[in-house]
Amino acid sequence: MSSKKTVYVRLKEGVLDPQGVTINKSLKQMGYDDFISVKFGKFFELEVKADSADIDRKIKEVSEKLLSNPVIETFTVENN
Amino acid sequence: MSSKKTVYVRLKEGVLDPQGVTINKSLKQMGYDDFISVKFGKFFELEVKADSADIDRKIKEVSEKLLSNPVIETFTVENN
Repeated sequence: MSSKKTVYVRLKEGVLDPQGVTINKSLKQMGYDDFISVKFGKFFELEVKADSADIDRKIKEVSEKLLSNPVIETFTVENN
Repeated sequence: MSSKKTVYVRLKEGVLDPQGVTINKSLKQMGYDDFISVKFGKFFELEVKADSADIDRKIKEVSEKLLSNPVIETFTVENN
């Protein structure tokens, strides 16, 4: 038995988002003028053992240590 | 006025996920044995003009042409 959690990682406000900037430019060049802004983010779909003790704390820990860079990024966790 | 849409891009089943593999290994090395698997994905938060005509088609188009690689990736669109 297992359960699923998703960790979403976003750049903090004010941090340069080069992928977002590039995609914005490309959209304009391709003639799409309906888009005001694009922000890039990443996510991690974690499959965890159902009987894991203290799993929310562990997910917070690995999100801070491994999945994100707390200096420039924030994360949110969602139960699936 | 604007509205928000999020495009989630995932690797197709069976396509090698190097980031996922690396994070899985790191979790084991760090002593976390509660995690069965990790899958990596990316997302794009689009801010679109509220009066855009035919916006769903355009988002599908840019998702196929620019935001994902249809050979190895799939995408889903969510209204926020």
